[in-house]
Amino acid sequence: MKALVYQGPNCLALEERPKPSIQDPTDAIVKVTHTTICGTDIHLLQNEIPCNPDCILGHEGVGIIEAIGSGVTNFYPDQLVLISCITSCGYCLHCRKGMPSNCLSGGFTLGNKIDGTQAEYVRVPHASFSLHLLPDTIDRKASVLLSDVFPTAYECGIRNGQIRPGSRVAIIGPGPIGLAALSMLKSLFGPALVVVIGRGKSRLDAAKAAGADHTLSTLDGIGELTERSNALTGDRGFDVVIEAVGSKQAFEISQALVAAGGTIATLGVYGSKCDLHLEKLWNRNICLKTGLVDTVSTPELLEMAKAGILRPESLVSHNFSLDEIEQAYTVVRAASEHGTMKVVITI
Amino acid sequence: MKALVYQGPNCLALEERPKPSIQDPTDAIVKVTHTTICGTDIHLLQNEIPCNPDCILGHEGVGIIEAIGSGVTNFYPDQLVLISCITSCGYCLHCRKGMPSNCLSGGFTLGNKIDGTQAEYVRVPHASFSLHLLPDTIDRKASVLLSDVFPTAYECGIRNGQIRPGSRVAIIGPGPIGLAALSMLKSLFGPALVVVIGRGKSRLDAAKAAGADHTLSTLDGIGELTERSNALTGDRGFDVVIEAVGSKQAFEISQALVAAGGTIATLGVYGSKCDLHLEKLWNRNICLKTGLVDTVSTPELLEMAKAGILRPESLVSHNFSLDEIEQAYTVVRAASEHGTMKVVITI
Amino acid sequence: MKALVYQGPNCLALEERPKPSIQDPTDAIVKVTHTTICGTDIHLLQNEIPCNPDCILGHEGVGIIEAIGSGVTNFYPDQLVLISCITSCGYCLHCRKGMPSNCLSGGFTLGNKIDGTQAEYVRVPHASFSLHLLPDTIDRKASVLLSDVFPTAYECGIRNGQIRPGSRVAIIGPGPIGLAALSMLKSLFGPALVVVIGRGKSRLDAAKAAGADHTLSTLDGIGELTERSNALTGDRGFDVVIEAVGSKQAFEISQALVAAGGTIATLGVYGSKCDLHLEKLWNRNICLKTGLVDTVSTPELLEMAKAGILRPESLVSHNFSLDEIEQAYTVVRAASEHGTMKVVITI
Amino acid sequence: MKALVYQGPNCLALEERPKPSIQDPTDAIVKVTHTTICGTDIHLLQNEIPCNPDCILGHEGVGIIEAIGSGVTNFYPDQLVLISCITSCGYCLHCRKGMPSNCLSGGFTLGNKIDGTQAEYVRVPHASFSLHLLPDTIDRKASVLLSDVFPTAYECGIRNGQIRPGSRVAIIGPGPIGLAALSMLKSLFGPALVVVIGRGKSRLDAAKAAGADHTLSTLDGIGELTERSNALTGDRGFDVVIEAVGSKQAFEISQALVAAGGTIATLGVYGSKCDLHLEKLWNRNICLKTGLVDTVSTPELLEMAKAGILRPESLVSHNFSLDEIEQAYTVVRAASEHGTMKVVITI
Repeated sequence: MKALVYQGPNCLALEERPKPSIQDPTDAIVKVTHTTICGTDIHLLQNEIPCNPDCILGHEGVGIIEAIGSGVTNFYPDQLVLISCITSCGYCLHCRKGMPSNCLSGGFTLGNKIDGTQAEYVRVPHASFSLHLLPDTIDRKASVLLSDVFPTAYECGIRNGQIRPGSRVAIIGPGPIGLAALSMLKSLFGPALVVVIGRGKSRLDAAKAAGADHTLSTLDGIGELTERSNALTGDRGFDVVIEAVGSKQAFEISQALVAAGGTIATLGVYGSKCDLHLEKLWNRNICLKTGLVDTVSTPELLEMAKAGILRPESLVSHNFSLDEIEQAYTVVRAASEHGTMKVVITI
Repeated sequence: MKALVYQGPNCLALEERPKPSIQDPTDAIVKVTHTTICGTDIHLLQNEIPCNPDCILGHEGVGIIEAIGSGVTNFYPDQLVLISCITSCGYCLHCRKGMPSNCLSGGFTLGNKIDGTQAEYVRVPHASFSLHLLPDTIDRKASVLLSDVFPTAYECGIRNGQIRPGSRVAIIGPGPIGLAALSMLKSLFGPALVVVIGRGKSRLDAAKAAGADHTLSTLDGIGELTERSNALTGDRGFDVVIEAVGSKQAFEISQALVAAGGTIATLGVYGSKCDLHLEKLWNRNICLKTGLVDTVSTPELLEMAKAGILRPESLVSHNFSLDEIEQAYTVVRAASEHGTMKVVITI
Repeated sequence: MKALVYQGPNCLALEERPKPSIQDPTDAIVKVTHTTICGTDIHLLQNEIPCNPDCILGHEGVGIIEAIGSGVTNFYPDQLVLISCITSCGYCLHCRKGMPSNCLSGGFTLGNKIDGTQAEYVRVPHASFSLHLLPDTIDRKASVLLSDVFPTAYECGIRNGQIRPGSRVAIIGPGPIGLAALSMLKSLFGPALVVVIGRGKSRLDAAKAAGADHTLSTLDGIGELTERSNALTGDRGFDVVIEAVGSKQAFEISQALVAAGGTIATLGVYGSKCDLHLEKLWNRNICLKTGLVDTVSTPELLEMAKAGILRPESLVSHNFSLDEIEQAYTVVRAASEHGTMKVVITI
Repeated sequence: MKALVYQGPNCLALEERPKPSIQDPTDAIVKVTHTTICGTDIHLLQNEIPCNPDCILGHEGVGIIEAIGSGVTNFYPDQLVLISCITSCGYCLHCRKGMPSNCLSGGFTLGNKIDGTQAEYVRVPHASFSLHLLPDTIDRKASVLLSDVFPTAYECGIRNGQIRPGSRVAIIGPGPIGLAALSMLKSLFGPALVVVIGRGKSRLDAAKAAGADHTLSTLDGIGELTERSNALTGDRGFDVVIEAVGSKQAFEISQALVAAGGTIATLGVYGSKCDLHLEKLWNRNICLKTGLVDTVSTPELLEMAKAGILRPESLVSHNFSLDEIEQAYTVVRAASEHGTMKVVITI
């Protein structure tokens, strides 16, 4: 089969690989019909997060079950499924606490520790918990955003942020996850104010179009940003800051903007330590949550998608075939040049 | 009246001052019978936290109501009361959210912005919310620890730490607040493991005597500490780390010891920024809470004291009269030399 | 002044009464500009809930502060205020727990134990907590629905119901509170399904117009209702049932429709005991919450109204002057005949 | 093998039965070493809850894994395990919500729908989630109480009751589950007051010995009970009432004793509907939770048992062999005569 392989830092290629087969009774083999490229794939490619050499990339996917292990009783071949970006045994101490991101025999493994979804077929371990039946009433192609983008925005942004009706929310980073958080905020909650903060004009315009009450540019500097935020929040700051970038600067801004009693929810991938201004925050009773997605909300998100209250298709900006996947990576890496949000690879 | 006055950095003196009087209809004048000295008083004295010049120090106290403003309908003269370290209007946006620490016309003001409790009399603003009737069945002298020490340990340590039955808990800093947290942990919850971490042998011994399962010394270095913690927690780390010191080192240790999915609750007063290792914590789903006490738990703590399930008297190590208060400060500042836990000043 | 007085069961009259004056330092006198009539006023009038003889009716109101007690420091004359239906001292054991409905010296008193708001002036006890500054950017007339209707729908319906994004919700009773709950559900949350259940066609049509996905009629009988609900929920039942009627039949329906693990939130005024089918519910892990409104959410609701995400004006069906108030009662009592939702009395 | 079989209402017998074998790849066969008899077994025997004819009784057990299905990857033969009273697939909609009691292909099935644990061997479906590794440092015999008694007391009593430090708690029904709740309350929480209410003097004495602050007898009638409770709670009622009987009378008492804002947690098996006094409770903001145990807390309870903070052995009153099991049933059915708490059957 064809598969996109990580050949080392900044080096990838579409190769011919053997089709995977069942190894454990809890496995499934899925024929991938759609996959996508994540910001994390770029981090992997750039060697900022470790990736096994010769690993097939990709942790998001929709497909058809080709084969199923003898121990999986809730799926069978030919079913249309969503592949979760997190594989989960279901029973280890972390899974039982609702934290499969740290599953002792799973977690974030597809496309970095074991072969991933940017291929014609993928072996999915712990299939009972790592696959989700995809209702045929929802858009199969756009559903690939439910592998990672939407659960991450929901769990690490909205839930961790402790959003309540009437919350004042700042979202730093109008990339796909930031915008997914924005769209869920607007359709699932009644925030009193949503301000999106970013760099590129096109993405800030996209945020405005997607319902942001205001947008602010990081190019203006943290002083100006803080001043404008104060004007927008009546000097109170934001109840919730969703930090969807993963940089020192973005984390610095988060701390400047959060209200007393407020919450900072980070969902970026950080490559280095950051300054935490405890000398200013110690008496402001703030809460900070870090988060790798657990995908425990996926069944609910699928229900919401079925009920028509999530619209993942609005975030798809480009479409490619598997043969064009290297070009798709180029489009993702030069996002501002191409106006890229999410690309979908149809296989 | 006699009062202990802050005369500038590292300079205090027992002075003669005019007796305070009602200024606002929501005030009370309390004849102080007991007060104490807090670590925060030392920070104020050393100019690490700002203190108004010529301010009478002290934010903890027990006393008898001498006079009451016309607008206070829930107290009257001659009642025995506990003075909260936080004054609270009750109705501002922060008070209504249960966060009087950030009260718009109160908060942490006694003994730094307005005259405090280390005096024969004190004016308490917003008396309806800042005073609590003291049942005469509980030890009046030790009750002064309910002004600040116990609510801080409870709200910022135990509640913010999200302690559950069976939690594995590390307490960094076996000072009065750390030990108050320890004693409440042992009597109000069923932790599976409590490890207290500190420097001085005498305080670690006190922690052991108060029920810590194990103690570890910071003198051994963070590597050794982490190794021993791993041995004690089966390599999982602590579900909850209560950071009761307020230093860079203590915060560094907190991050090394917290389990995936765990919580760090800080209740120290930080003078400078700290390193936050987001490059290690981003995918471990931790929660960090900073906290200045709100004293919203004081009514419950008084109920628990009345029911005999809090024992503040166990933390009182020294007794002084108001005339001896400068000596009491010496004993607090040289805590390890004197084996000081909490001093009580009887007036 | 003119005031509507309860003269005994089913007997009321617009009388001339002396203008109230400050009695306690925590009182305010408010010149009422708008009031309304509640279903509870009808219960009082019909002697189903006790009402003091010769009491001025009414517990909802908007007005201008005329005079203020010496102990109230957060309001002053000439301010435009919302009068909460619940008076709250702020400091009693129930108020401190966020439950002013059971305030030891307040609670639901206006218009049944003490003179109420259906008059030119009203004395409001505990003014600091029982009044709310009304921003002049919001519709003053419709704001009178924030005295009771919206906080009741929000606290007793939505909060007690533990609504989450994607919830399947049934609302029994499409009266003003049921429809307020519906409108908040649709604008503040993203329910997957909202079904409104009632008797009268006009109110069910109003529910449909206000965003209900489906409506069902109680006239069809509980068997038919259950069958149709099962069809709509895939045989799972509703995650949340908001029971906004207060009758045996409505409570019976609630139990038939609630899903395993679901919540029934009651916000009706019950005149008699009901059957609870523990023989069917014991192993279905349901939660039942009863609720008289606490109005602790009023500040948040005012923020939401200011942000434009609540639209109380949509529920106002009729307008009257104070001289016409007896006619307004007729219109409220014969709601289906007149298509009555909420009436507003402008004074 | 020998097995205790339900032969019809009030009729059981120790029979010879074929040893069970693996049917599904997710099954395990466990050689039972200890089992016990539950109040629910008596309900089954008396036909108050349906039981399949010729079903082997018993849903509690400790044993050694004899054989394991090919799909179970977290257990292997010869391991010492606890058998949960609830079998759980882990992935159905109810299991994913933490409610295996309503598992679509499991739940409460052992010993009523499928052959149970009162036998030499038992087939346990969904073994990955229905078995728990038993640490060999804890008392194997007493651990059988962790199959049902302790998780029921913990989840349906303490968690559903929303116990907090300082709570005032009434436990109705000093049977094994009531006393397990009592012992956990005392060792895992710091209640301000625990009152146990029951009929028989011996069980009330046992409650007193196990740490109840007071005991009250239902023989005194509900009026007397209410009066004494009021005296004990300062007329406030109980914050939490744990109803561990499952009768109309007990439910009536629960409603009379619960405080405004309090919670009633029921964990009895009810055979008929009860009166709910909504005419008294509608404005008291109470919460009622019904509950069949989910056993999701079992891993935590095992941790607590390992840490020595649960002491199930204190509830074992009688020991029998499998050959004596019919006699054991007699001892359970005539509990007051025999002073029975829990019996353990060693096989």
